Amino acid sequence: EARLPPGYTIRPLQASDYHRGVLQTLAVLTTVGDISESDFIKRFQYWQDRNDTYYNVVIVNDKDRVVAIGSVVIERKLIHHCASAGHIEDIAVASSEQGKKLGLHLINTLTAIAEQVGAYKVILDCSDKNVPFYEKCGYTHSGNEMVLKF
Amino acid sequence: EARLPPGYTIRPLQASDYHRGVLQTLAVLTTVGDISESDFIKRFQYWQDRNDTYYNVVIVNDKDRVVAIGSVVIERKLIHHCASAGHIEDIAVASSEQGKKLGLHLINTLTAIAEQVGAYKVILDCSDKNVPFYEKCGYTHSGNEMVLKF
Ligand SMILES: CC(=O)N[C@@H]1[C@@H](O)[C@H](O)[C@@H](COP(=O)(O)O)O[C@@H]1O
Ligand SMILES: CC(=O)N[C@@H]1[C@@H](O)[C@H](O)[C@@H](COP(=O)(O)O)O[C@@H]1O
Repeated sequence: EARLPPGYTIRPLQASDYHRGVLQTLAVLTTVGDISESDFIKRFQYWQDRNDTYYNVVIVNDKDRVVAIGSVVIERKLIHHCASAGHIEDIAVASSEQGKKLGLHLINTLTAIAEQVGAYKVILDCSDKNVPFYEKCGYTHSGNEMVLKF
Repeated sequence: EARLPPGYTIRPLQASDYHRGVLQTLAVLTTVGDISESDFIKRFQYWQDRNDTYYNVVIVNDKDRVVAIGSVVIERKLIHHCASAGHIEDIAVASSEQGKKLGLHLINTLTAIAEQVGAYKVILDCSDKNVPFYEKCGYTHSGNEMVLKF
């Protein structure tokens, strides 16, 4: 079982994380863009209003900075007798915090949330270079991600 | 542009589609299980209550049977300046209706819905054997689907 370094905590995203560097951490993954505090609060509120669907988790370090973020989105289906499926999305760990197993801890936590809400599976999409990491988290390769960008 | 055969229509899923064979069509994809009408209506209502998130589309044939179904789920993110991403899910076409380009028509429609709601991309996961079909729909391979089943 992954353990966090002393002084680090894992918890749900908070509105005040805007001031703890959450967007800078997310920018490790892809383009984030210039998001104002009110844009952030609006998105945060959208998620709060759908708290059976969006679960956003962060890891905060011993200096009260957000150094990892990720989410699991719960999709309700008809298949498998009206089952739910979890989608792990937008995983990012600050570059300066690599090697501390924060990613593993985050994925374990998000996977456990999906299990708790009764999902029959969790899926995620990743590049070739991240396949070994997700295998360490217990995931197996199961198909191809296809994309169409507008 | 894909055209439907005469007498076929494409439209949003309706509660009464339970009686048009929608579950039998979905069973082409995977296990559906024994879903009662009230289970179906409950799930349908859940989706209706979140109609900025779930878009379910069916193709009905000239005998008023549901012969294809699919959905696009809109996920709200922080990345790309609080962008939305579409997830195409649970695509099924009745075996007896193959070769009529119903799948292509369905994917084009779901992709257009995602574009209309302002998504920056649509993604979906598929097996190796379905990659050429999704390429014909304009999709390109972009990564690996990883899964953990409970
Ligand atoms: C497991 C994980 O974190 N996967 C992410 C996905 O969630 C994210 O949305 C995407 C952004 O890439 P994009 O900017 O090219 O859309 O990258 C990766 O596929
Ligand atoms: C584009 C498309 O339709 N992809 C489907 C996915 O939406 C569906 O949920 C899954 C069910 O498979 P499962 O029963 O093994 O979870 O199969 C395919 O990956």
